[in-house]
Amino acid sequence: MGLMRPQVLIIGCGFGGLEAARALRAAEVDITLVDKTNHHLFQPLLYQVATAGLSAPSIAAPIRHLFRGQRNVTTLLGEVTGIDANARTATLKDGAVLRWDHLIVAAGATHSYFGRDEWAAHAPGLKTLEDAFEIRRRVLLAFEAAEREDDPARRAALMQFVVVGAGPTGVELAGTFAEIARHTLPGEFRRIDPRQARVLLVEGSPRVLQAMPESLSESARAQLAALGVDVRLGARVTGIDAEGLDITTSAGAERLASRCVVWAAGVAASPLGRVLAEATGCTLDRAGRVVVEPDLSLKGFANLQVIGDLAAAQSHAPGQDPKPVPGVSPGAKQMGRCAAANIKRRLRGEVTQAFRYRDYGNLATIGRNSAVVDLGTPAGPLRFSGYFAWLFWLFAHVYFLIGYRNRFVVLLDWAWAYWTYDRGARVVANAGLAGLNEASPVHDVKA
Amino acid sequence: MGLMRPQVLIIGCGFGGLEAARALRAAEVDITLVDKTNHHLFQPLLYQVATAGLSAPSIAAPIRHLFRGQRNVTTLLGEVTGIDANARTATLKDGAVLRWDHLIVAAGATHSYFGRDEWAAHAPGLKTLEDAFEIRRRVLLAFEAAEREDDPARRAALMQFVVVGAGPTGVELAGTFAEIARHTLPGEFRRIDPRQARVLLVEGSPRVLQAMPESLSESARAQLAALGVDVRLGARVTGIDAEGLDITTSAGAERLASRCVVWAAGVAASPLGRVLAEATGCTLDRAGRVVVEPDLSLKGFANLQVIGDLAAAQSHAPGQDPKPVPGVSPGAKQMGRCAAANIKRRLRGEVTQAFRYRDYGNLATIGRNSAVVDLGTPAGPLRFSGYFAWLFWLFAHVYFLIGYRNRFVVLLDWAWAYWTYDRGARVVANAGLAGLNEASPVHDVKA
Repeated sequence: MGLMRPQVLIIGCGFGGLEAARALRAAEVDITLVDKTNHHLFQPLLYQVATAGLSAPSIAAPIRHLFRGQRNVTTLLGEVTGIDANARTATLKDGAVLRWDHLIVAAGATHSYFGRDEWAAHAPGLKTLEDAFEIRRRVLLAFEAAEREDDPARRAALMQFVVVGAGPTGVELAGTFAEIARHTLPGEFRRIDPRQARVLLVEGSPRVLQAMPESLSESARAQLAALGVDVRLGARVTGIDAEGLDITTSAGAERLASRCVVWAAGVAASPLGRVLAEATGCTLDRAGRVVVEPDLSLKGFANLQVIGDLAAAQSHAPGQDPKPVPGVSPGAKQMGRCAAANIKRRLRGEVTQAFRYRDYGNLATIGRNSAVVDLGTPAGPLRFSGYFAWLFWLFAHVYFLIGYRNRFVVLLDWAWAYWTYDRGARVVANAGLAGLNEASPVHDVKA
Repeated sequence: MGLMRPQVLIIGCGFGGLEAARALRAAEVDITLVDKTNHHLFQPLLYQVATAGLSAPSIAAPIRHLFRGQRNVTTLLGEVTGIDANARTATLKDGAVLRWDHLIVAAGATHSYFGRDEWAAHAPGLKTLEDAFEIRRRVLLAFEAAEREDDPARRAALMQFVVVGAGPTGVELAGTFAEIARHTLPGEFRRIDPRQARVLLVEGSPRVLQAMPESLSESARAQLAALGVDVRLGARVTGIDAEGLDITTSAGAERLASRCVVWAAGVAASPLGRVLAEATGCTLDRAGRVVVEPDLSLKGFANLQVIGDLAAAQSHAPGQDPKPVPGVSPGAKQMGRCAAANIKRRLRGEVTQAFRYRDYGNLATIGRNSAVVDLGTPAGPLRFSGYFAWLFWLFAHVYFLIGYRNRFVVLLDWAWAYWTYDRGARVVANAGLAGLNEASPVHDVKA
């Protein structure tokens, strides 16, 4: 038996895990990359799959295809449920055991309903392709059920769409829902007018896109309003059920009837955070994220690094106070590269480096021709919104999309949608109207 | 209340129902088009979705979008479960009632397991998008599970794929599975060699593509063999379970271990055939299809026509004996146009016309560069196979595909797949390995 090369295990193939594995391309290590799914997902465009603008394969690339040419990577489909930091093993859900010398945990985040998990059934979140299909199904079938509904109140509830949370995902979803109602569907129904659909965006804080400068938040709010989205700021959700949701604002309590509520409010770290806490004694923050050392490792476990949305990491710039790293994809990618670099340093016997986040700016889109852009330049911040911001957003996203064919297909889909207002992926595989018309089981369509 | 226009109800929006509704574009009637799904499916390319070559939206168009400009069509999502031919009503699953003056039933066909419905769980068929996603999932996850499997026998079973039935769908699936194993996946796995996967095509009759002339069947068999498909002719399936299937040939009984069996053998008419038989006393043939009059109506119910795969129809050419109509999409389309023409004739007080099937030929593809073509020309039959047959097949299918954007995207996907051997839609949304590795719950991946 020959000399065993150091074994690197990477859990999760989002932006962080993918980048870490790539950065170890030339390293003398064996990498095992484990993910729960068979694809790397380009999450910034997932809302387009949920709103039928793109098909799933356009934004999802098979992981093992991405690493086809990188011979030191073995891809495994599986879910890690246990970690032993002393024995240096990870256990998969089905009992298989993986040994590691260096571990990078990049398991990401999931939805958080702030302890109200019973809301999940009525208000799906948007993290996976399955989530996107479910939201697509609910939105399209709500219009189908409305076309068949005779009762005006129930019809109005079917045509009222509520997005909870006005971060980037919530803003994108609400803006696109409004576009679908106003531009895509009109003319296709005979008994309802899709333009009468209402889209509400409910946000607890006083402004949308909190990570953005205040002027851009206000611009985004105005662009949403121009698209017809009813933005409710400072509104707290107190209940969600199959028929709608309850909110409280300074004006008092209000009931919003809706058969299609989408949850874009809370993010919680992967349950692997708790597994790590039990295995290493590390600290978790309020969102369940793992508090890491400056070099992204865990205290006492120098060969175990946590990156991406699962990490509560700080940026360490020389001469400045540490600053929290925002939960955005450039942050995850940069952490992935840092973790890989630290493994290489340790293999060479060098000291590890502290993580430093480089902020190149912040983009969010709202809908057709609408976006806000906040860039850091050597000359100071550059902020703009509207049509050119939208073009900038579009090309930035297509540029970072993985796979040349995908980039081309996505641009084609966008060009098509732009000129025709059509959305190419309005297909629901499982089209049962179960539950949507159940309140009115008998009605004569011709009556 | 004004004058009520005649009410036409069309059940099913496959090739037959779609064509019937289109042919009534200028008629002074109100059309209600009911389908169980929200999309018209281009079934000839469904095997490409199952084998990850195309994404679902490329071959599925929202029905109400197709009829956006045809104002006399109302599209409803729903499942018809009851028909009263005397009261002229149809009842949906949820109890809603639709009245009609003219009814066209175009509900199509489903899989038949020849009375062995317990096989369905182990050998899915291919009729809907959900079927296609399930087959895609099983094929791709079988390779994933094989990569994680240590036991050679279980690994071999995971890498053995069996298609039952060598009609056009079975031949396409088997050929494409072989292509995936030989061309798409090699290089992406570290512990298995996908080229060692075996693809078997099991057929009860003595040749593949029975609807084709014998010389083309033999050519197709040879092209399948060249792709590495093990074709078993004259083989009867006697059992299917979670671990494989049992077949009997002239050589005796044989057990084929497989975790991925696809059923492309039997077709049965929609259950609406039985509903119609109870409602009208019409006769069903052995496959459950409705025996129709020469003008596609039912005996005693001149305003009720049955078309497409649900109809056991005859072609009536002047001076010739009636001939059965094959269950192919041109047959369904032509019946749709005939049924619409007959409704218009009845509205004008004219006699209806007998259906006449015009056979323009028969195509089937086997895989990359491989197909067989049988065309009827005024100068006699034109038969060819191989590369030019494949090009002919490809352009014929893209030409008939609905939607300009789809045609372009499909051509692009094919061109990409052709030059790179890649398949763009290798994405599985629900990627649980449940059941696939359960026989070996504990194994050390590095062992």
